[in-house]
Amino acid sequence: MTTTLDPDQVAIPTVSFDADPATYRHWKLDVDGPVARLTLDVDEDGGLVPGYELKMNSYDLGVDIELYDATQRLRFEHPGVRAVVITSAKDRNFCAGANIRMLAQSSHPWKVNFCKFTNETRNGIEDATENSGQTYIAALNGTAAGGGYELALACDEILLIDDNSSAVSLPEVPLLGVLPGTGGLTRVTDKRRVRKDRADVFATRAEGVRGKQAVEWRLVDEVIPKRRWDETVAERAAEAAQRSNRPADAQGISLTPLEREEDADGIRYRHVRARFDRSLGLVEITIDGPTGDVPETVERVHELGAQFWPLAMTRELDDLILRLRANELELGTWIVRTRGDVEDALAFERLIEQHSGEDWLVNEIRHYFKRVLKRLDVTSRSLIALIEPGSCFAGALLELALACDRQYMLDGTLDEESGEQQDPAQIVLSASNFGTFPMPNGLSRLGSRFYGDDDAVAKLRQETGRRIEAVEALELGLVTDAPDDIDWDDEIRIMLEERASLSPDALTGMEANLRFVGPETMESRIFARLTAWQNWIFVRPNASGPEGALRKYGTGRKADFDRKRV
Amino acid sequence: MTTTLDPDQVAIPTVSFDADPATYRHWKLDVDGPVARLTLDVDEDGGLVPGYELKMNSYDLGVDIELYDATQRLRFEHPGVRAVVITSAKDRNFCAGANIRMLAQSSHPWKVNFCKFTNETRNGIEDATENSGQTYIAALNGTAAGGGYELALACDEILLIDDNSSAVSLPEVPLLGVLPGTGGLTRVTDKRRVRKDRADVFATRAEGVRGKQAVEWRLVDEVIPKRRWDETVAERAAEAAQRSNRPADAQGISLTPLEREEDADGIRYRHVRARFDRSLGLVEITIDGPTGDVPETVERVHELGAQFWPLAMTRELDDLILRLRANELELGTWIVRTRGDVEDALAFERLIEQHSGEDWLVNEIRHYFKRVLKRLDVTSRSLIALIEPGSCFAGALLELALACDRQYMLDGTLDEESGEQQDPAQIVLSASNFGTFPMPNGLSRLGSRFYGDDDAVAKLRQETGRRIEAVEALELGLVTDAPDDIDWDDEIRIMLEERASLSPDALTGMEANLRFVGPETMESRIFARLTAWQNWIFVRPNASGPEGALRKYGTGRKADFDRKRV
Repeated sequence: MTTTLDPDQVAIPTVSFDADPATYRHWKLDVDGPVARLTLDVDEDGGLVPGYELKMNSYDLGVDIELYDATQRLRFEHPGVRAVVITSAKDRNFCAGANIRMLAQSSHPWKVNFCKFTNETRNGIEDATENSGQTYIAALNGTAAGGGYELALACDEILLIDDNSSAVSLPEVPLLGVLPGTGGLTRVTDKRRVRKDRADVFATRAEGVRGKQAVEWRLVDEVIPKRRWDETVAERAAEAAQRSNRPADAQGISLTPLEREEDADGIRYRHVRARFDRSLGLVEITIDGPTGDVPETVERVHELGAQFWPLAMTRELDDLILRLRANELELGTWIVRTRGDVEDALAFERLIEQHSGEDWLVNEIRHYFKRVLKRLDVTSRSLIALIEPGSCFAGALLELALACDRQYMLDGTLDEESGEQQDPAQIVLSASNFGTFPMPNGLSRLGSRFYGDDDAVAKLRQETGRRIEAVEALELGLVTDAPDDIDWDDEIRIMLEERASLSPDALTGMEANLRFVGPETMESRIFARLTAWQNWIFVRPNASGPEGALRKYGTGRKADFDRKRV
Repeated sequence: MTTTLDPDQVAIPTVSFDADPATYRHWKLDVDGPVARLTLDVDEDGGLVPGYELKMNSYDLGVDIELYDATQRLRFEHPGVRAVVITSAKDRNFCAGANIRMLAQSSHPWKVNFCKFTNETRNGIEDATENSGQTYIAALNGTAAGGGYELALACDEILLIDDNSSAVSLPEVPLLGVLPGTGGLTRVTDKRRVRKDRADVFATRAEGVRGKQAVEWRLVDEVIPKRRWDETVAERAAEAAQRSNRPADAQGISLTPLEREEDADGIRYRHVRARFDRSLGLVEITIDGPTGDVPETVERVHELGAQFWPLAMTRELDDLILRLRANELELGTWIVRTRGDVEDALAFERLIEQHSGEDWLVNEIRHYFKRVLKRLDVTSRSLIALIEPGSCFAGALLELALACDRQYMLDGTLDEESGEQQDPAQIVLSASNFGTFPMPNGLSRLGSRFYGDDDAVAKLRQETGRRIEAVEALELGLVTDAPDDIDWDDEIRIMLEERASLSPDALTGMEANLRFVGPETMESRIFARLTAWQNWIFVRPNASGPEGALRKYGTGRKADFDRKRV
């Protein structure tokens, strides 16, 4: 008999999101002209945390970190790739989903954070298909169960081998007493348009569905006899590549390793710094705007590659968000500041705006920044923007402030430190605040902020390009408050202390509700309805208690459910 | 010091939803021509469950049962009412929201079920304004806190007295560590269009907002000096009444007490029966179709009043749903059957369709059935329709089957009991299956079922009025399966046993996700995002544990939070 470790007794390592194809333990990335192949071959002994074996091509956070790395490299390092085939190296087994013993031994925050990251990676796959002409095709050469099938659902096409045994399934409800947690229920109904009663049957049938029925129910696009498998997969990939508008002869750039210093007080990158204040439970994040001249040509942007400020800064911020979420659970408030020159920030933005339609790299950078902003939107921390003299919240960087729950802008110059006269804080709106970086609900951050008030948004459009100081920003509704330099320190301190005194759970729920108004998309529904229900189920004894389904799985004994419906 | 009872040790009474204005303990209903006044005057000692006092006009389920009764009577018994003023009999205190000690001592299912019912009542208030020309006005003659303010948010207009102390507030997050659970966060942003950063400040500030700021932030519509209070409230009510198209001289009907027999085996009404099977954890619900002649005139409908089958059946079904939800938590599967003549059902429906545009009572009946169907949509039980010979799932009654998670239709005659030859089961589509009874997501049940497949819906439209038997219903996608009479008993039994073996929590989450595809409305968002997060927060130790905020409230000691963000 195997024993499951108690979640309270598992030593959680500090999670790093660094990865490199040369050292992947679980994936193989092969590029052959316009078609890449991502092959899942999980190393059973390669779990990120001790206590479980990754059998049956099941995954944990470590496997997904490599997948995320691969999807990023495909976009930046392999611009010629137009179709990506995801398949498995195991016979008759595509992927068994998230490892159950890992889930059983994981703490609640670990499970939730793991699901969030895997969801973001799957949304990123859809984003690559939609915005980069890299179409993902799931080539299920064996059974795809649970998270394995959910990975397939994120792909544009799902091909299933017809070998009289391979099936697709979502066995979470019948076997584990939890939901398919990475978009399965949402994508089955909303993307694949499976009828709800069939989805109900499918999601309660542990063995899943295969063959013709899987096609009829729209769970897969095609069932392919074994003898024609390789040939048909290649055909479908070639067809998808044909449809793409990716450049044929583009040279990729190299996503060089991030430079990062880390100690007890914080994390520092080249353009992004985070300072921890453990007593107040907060992180002070500062993002440096660009320095030096803006590249004169797009060729120069390619030469700079990963050193080009917008990309370098975005990568650092992405890494920081992921590390803080995974490793610093008790730092519940993130303060967001920028430092730099407003004009420089706008100059870089103009370059990106000018070329994003025609240059693949500039386009990738823009979409990457969009995805990182979306990570902020769904981060369960209180986000507070402090807009001070010397900051550069302009255009795209202003989105960082708008993504926050509140924005405070200093009305004055606060020059006590330097002793010199400083310019007051200024923000600048640009075209990119009006739709370039949509939130998961499909609206711009200004569109969400002024939901239902089109006049306010139209009025703001007319302010594009102008430097807006604190009092005016307050009047325009762009900031929450604008204390003067006498009140600033006290007001901010009291606000942060108050925030730190509130229930972390209530804040998470409140922020998740207030950040997204109005319409919903599949993406926002995954993070809203689906995630919230899953979080609830995860903490219920029926799933995670000593007699719960997650803990009893594989023991040969059935879970003992409290039958009360809530 | 007062002690809070342990949720596990509170004896929960069987909840009845019967109420009568003559015996209300907490509300006073006054009708004066086109304006009604609903005055909240909570009897401190009138709690539904022992262990708490309803101080400060705070409420429990019992208070809300009376409110629901009043809203129903206003629609059916007082058709001349065009504006409803909700106010309080207490000085400087409109309503303090849900009673905290009640919440602290309540079990998780009780809290969740209480929130669901209060949400439905508030949605019903908005439905009355939108569809019955009865505009609700919240006349806040004192502070409206938490659920008190959420009740105001459900009204069309919010008037606040300006007495230098009365405020509106959502103190749940700062004081209780839970969310405003009856739509507060959703209505503040989506209905009142309060900016998210202001909503964040508002929902974390225990004392709330008053005076001019409350108007500027759109939290209330008007702040009215004390000396002009009565006069202005009367003016606003008169203005709202003026806008209504309610008939001036209509005579109401009487909502006579329901006849109901109840014992250990089930509940029986005149047209609706429920039989409990505790070993399988299920309820078999049978709804009888109409018998006898359809009324020849709409006048006859008014004479019949509460005896008119569509209204009588709807009231019984409403009561049954509420009682089962509150009192039978372990009966996790509801089987839904109908019995009766298909032609009779369609004849009643034609009468309703013909007159709902011009006759207020027929219109009310139609909207009431719509609301009861919505109750099914958000009921956290597995709903299974069994369509057998002798059933009458036609038109509006077919919606009962479409609201279910699955539909099984018998292909054959199953005549072993009677020994006589029976007609096979038949279903009939009517115009009312295509939008008359929208779900909380704004789509018809067929629109949800065939989401994204307009062709399928268009094709079904052409089948309107035709009797459809099992095999064809299966082909058209109207039922999940159509076993023949040899397999029927076994297949249904196995399906029900399987359902009963699954985790009740996972089923609740799965059903809540699968029932609603595509677009969202404020209503569906309240039951989705908001409710799911609240359920999660309710079970977390930070709220409900011995050191949690709900249990510590009023003890003078602060909650001891686990600071980890999830």
